[in-house]
Amino acid sequence: MQIKELLQQQPAEQEVIVKAWVRTKRVSSSVAFIALNDGSTIHNIQAVVEENTVSEDVLKLVTTGSCVAVTGKLIASQGQGQAVEVKVKSIEVYGTADPEKYPLQPKKHSLEFLREIAHLRPRTNTFSAILRVRHALAFAIHKYFNDNGFFYLHTPIITGSDAEGAGEMFRVTTLPAINPPLNEEGKVDYKEDFFGKETNLTVSGQLEGELGAMALSKIYTFGPTFRAENSNTTRHLAEFWMIEPEVAFYELIDNMNLAEDFIKYLVKYALENCGDDIAFLEKRLLDEEKTKKKEEQSEMSLTEKLKFVVENTFERLTYTEAIEILLNSKAHKQNKFNYPVQWGIDLQSEHERYLVEKHFKKPVILTNYPKEIKAFYMKQDEDGKTVRAMDVLFPGIGEIIGGSQREDNLEKLIQRTKEVGIPEESIWWYLETRKFGSAPHAGFGLGFERLVLFVTGMSNIRDVIPFPRTPKSAEF
Amino acid sequence: MQIKELLQQQPAEQEVIVKAWVRTKRVSSSVAFIALNDGSTIHNIQAVVEENTVSEDVLKLVTTGSCVAVTGKLIASQGQGQAVEVKVKSIEVYGTADPEKYPLQPKKHSLEFLREIAHLRPRTNTFSAILRVRHALAFAIHKYFNDNGFFYLHTPIITGSDAEGAGEMFRVTTLPAINPPLNEEGKVDYKEDFFGKETNLTVSGQLEGELGAMALSKIYTFGPTFRAENSNTTRHLAEFWMIEPEVAFYELIDNMNLAEDFIKYLVKYALENCGDDIAFLEKRLLDEEKTKKKEEQSEMSLTEKLKFVVENTFERLTYTEAIEILLNSKAHKQNKFNYPVQWGIDLQSEHERYLVEKHFKKPVILTNYPKEIKAFYMKQDEDGKTVRAMDVLFPGIGEIIGGSQREDNLEKLIQRTKEVGIPEESIWWYLETRKFGSAPHAGFGLGFERLVLFVTGMSNIRDVIPFPRTPKSAEF
Repeated sequence: MQIKELLQQQPAEQEVIVKAWVRTKRVSSSVAFIALNDGSTIHNIQAVVEENTVSEDVLKLVTTGSCVAVTGKLIASQGQGQAVEVKVKSIEVYGTADPEKYPLQPKKHSLEFLREIAHLRPRTNTFSAILRVRHALAFAIHKYFNDNGFFYLHTPIITGSDAEGAGEMFRVTTLPAINPPLNEEGKVDYKEDFFGKETNLTVSGQLEGELGAMALSKIYTFGPTFRAENSNTTRHLAEFWMIEPEVAFYELIDNMNLAEDFIKYLVKYALENCGDDIAFLEKRLLDEEKTKKKEEQSEMSLTEKLKFVVENTFERLTYTEAIEILLNSKAHKQNKFNYPVQWGIDLQSEHERYLVEKHFKKPVILTNYPKEIKAFYMKQDEDGKTVRAMDVLFPGIGEIIGGSQREDNLEKLIQRTKEVGIPEESIWWYLETRKFGSAPHAGFGLGFERLVLFVTGMSNIRDVIPFPRTPKSAEF
Repeated sequence: MQIKELLQQQPAEQEVIVKAWVRTKRVSSSVAFIALNDGSTIHNIQAVVEENTVSEDVLKLVTTGSCVAVTGKLIASQGQGQAVEVKVKSIEVYGTADPEKYPLQPKKHSLEFLREIAHLRPRTNTFSAILRVRHALAFAIHKYFNDNGFFYLHTPIITGSDAEGAGEMFRVTTLPAINPPLNEEGKVDYKEDFFGKETNLTVSGQLEGELGAMALSKIYTFGPTFRAENSNTTRHLAEFWMIEPEVAFYELIDNMNLAEDFIKYLVKYALENCGDDIAFLEKRLLDEEKTKKKEEQSEMSLTEKLKFVVENTFERLTYTEAIEILLNSKAHKQNKFNYPVQWGIDLQSEHERYLVEKHFKKPVILTNYPKEIKAFYMKQDEDGKTVRAMDVLFPGIGEIIGGSQREDNLEKLIQRTKEVGIPEESIWWYLETRKFGSAPHAGFGLGFERLVLFVTGMSNIRDVIPFPRTPKSAEF
């Protein structure tokens, strides 16, 4: 039985076996108290070893990080902080952890240090909590879509196309790294490569997702995506997971409704299913905030922030309206923004944060952006200037969802591919969905790690994925 | 409302709007019958257009493959084969499909042809059924693990390690394809590459999965994996999805129990949730079988095969026992096997099929294989010759699951890495889980597409993944 279940048992001196890792051991007047954790919950179970029940030789091996099977009776706890504890009969040591060498001694470790031992950090309270919340959110995503008639579509990871028309991509190849075969023009002869063409890691499953939606009506993807951007920030990963629903017959408003309902469901699911872990992470965040200056401290606790998202209607306005608000803001008038504000700009993080955190004080959905700053596949508005894009902006996170209604008119779509320089022959299959049985449709992308950041209250994206991939870093 | 729901409504002349693609249109004494499908179900809904309700100009555009919104009343069907139908009031054509050009005209298309139009094939009955079953199986996987206390762990896709110690891998790089930077030895200077080292696409998430299990106890992965093998067979993909549970404190027998329970759950889930699609695929398979010689035809229908797996206890025996059976078989004595049989060989497909399909006539779990033919991380048996491996063999499919108890003894593990030539420094983090708090643990890998093959009764793995990646093929 796992510790999560054990802690919910009625203690009746029943014999139990706990298989777990030792978090701490302390000895008080010849009684040893061992805190055990098996990762099933943030809570430890306490094993109490009375004098002469376990040999000194064995007890000596029971140190922080060692792995043991403890047999004993489940009894009501004498001490505070737990309802039950184990009165130990015997201990089998599966694996020791030399206190001189084991890096996770019971003291505070910096997140930076823990990143260097990503193979061990899931054994800490913080990372096990994050990983359990991450799991719960992933499951909630599948459950939401399944319950709502969406089909999970596995779009390809290796691809010859570039959905955004601009992403920096990783090349996937089996050609020799030195002296690859060349063609008559002296260029690399990708005909000789594994797939007979140049291939890359996908930056988005959207284009292929649309193919699915144009047959199954409601699909979603949930898979890894890649950006070879040399960005060493707290917000970027070279490898991250993305969720992309795509729905036939949806227009922009349906898309907004879906995004809002979806993300509220996810946050609610986490609140309902990860209460213990969120409570722990909230306390962690509170301790961290205390080290900040007063004015930089968050006004809300983690739980309050999460409930705020669930309970509030997202503010919806157009990009044009947002620019008006920014132009009329004190921040703009007092030259507090680092980047200029005018219609046509790509909003900067400072602008988005102003709208979300200062002006509306709630999540915001911005729509109808200028077409020049958005992707070629977005449906053009009648004004000829804007497209039916939508970005969902969250406090602290910025853009958490980006989506749009898609251009379903073949001529207009071809026109845009020409303007942005995408060769028609490279996406003939995408264009054909507009040629044969075209339909209005819409969808969006949710960066999974940004969602996990928001729900866990962590601030560096490298701390919410088990093994982060960033420039110059692909260990483990 | 989607067609799946509409077909379950009580017809009461309520107004409905059906948004869907036209499968067929036939006209009979000035009444047009339109079969509509939106991918939510294998079943079409019939729309009946009586004379003079819809203009000829519009009706002309309603051809196979076009996309329409049909408004009308839901009435009890006059014809056979459906309970309800739509009495049409008006039709809006979203997108036409020129009958001269649209490739999916209502006739039988070969699977080979459909592979060339993978962007459109989800609009066929066969592929929409496969994709719905694929979705249901994926969801069942997440549900099973979530219900049983496993955490979904996202192991890295880009990796510097090679879990199998031997796989042919795809290189991931941002270095120039021609004239990459060289180091002093004249070799490619991977320090200059994006990750500062040579990186590849993962062949398995197991090693990282073990790291998770050694902290959270019960984890699983479900992600894409890659093999750069130049195999053009009906069983191999360069990119495929794999499920890999890993459990601390599990030994080989627990691992077998988990594998059997898990796969039975999945098949049962499909039977209970995809009845209509499986019935369609069963009929398709029956038609296909009829074109075969009598002796090559399957004795069981698709549903019978699936129920057979759910209802039978898998046969469990050691590799050594299996070799005995093969040596004593008529097939061996009459030299019917193409490959020789003796202790120490890697079993060939013909041997596995003999055991499963001829000898036991049910799924088989083989265990305790010779260590030389298995991976370095498998736990060594006391005899010094075999390891605690297990392969689950299925009729028609062969190996559907491969797993093992893992070597948890640091010295023995290091010994094996030396024997197979894996540098210790390349997996220092893996070794450390045996150094600090080691524990017995076990896990396995299930090839998702092989499972989908089995449940759908399809015979080519390229037909059970939306966009197959194979040598010289990465279109879409």
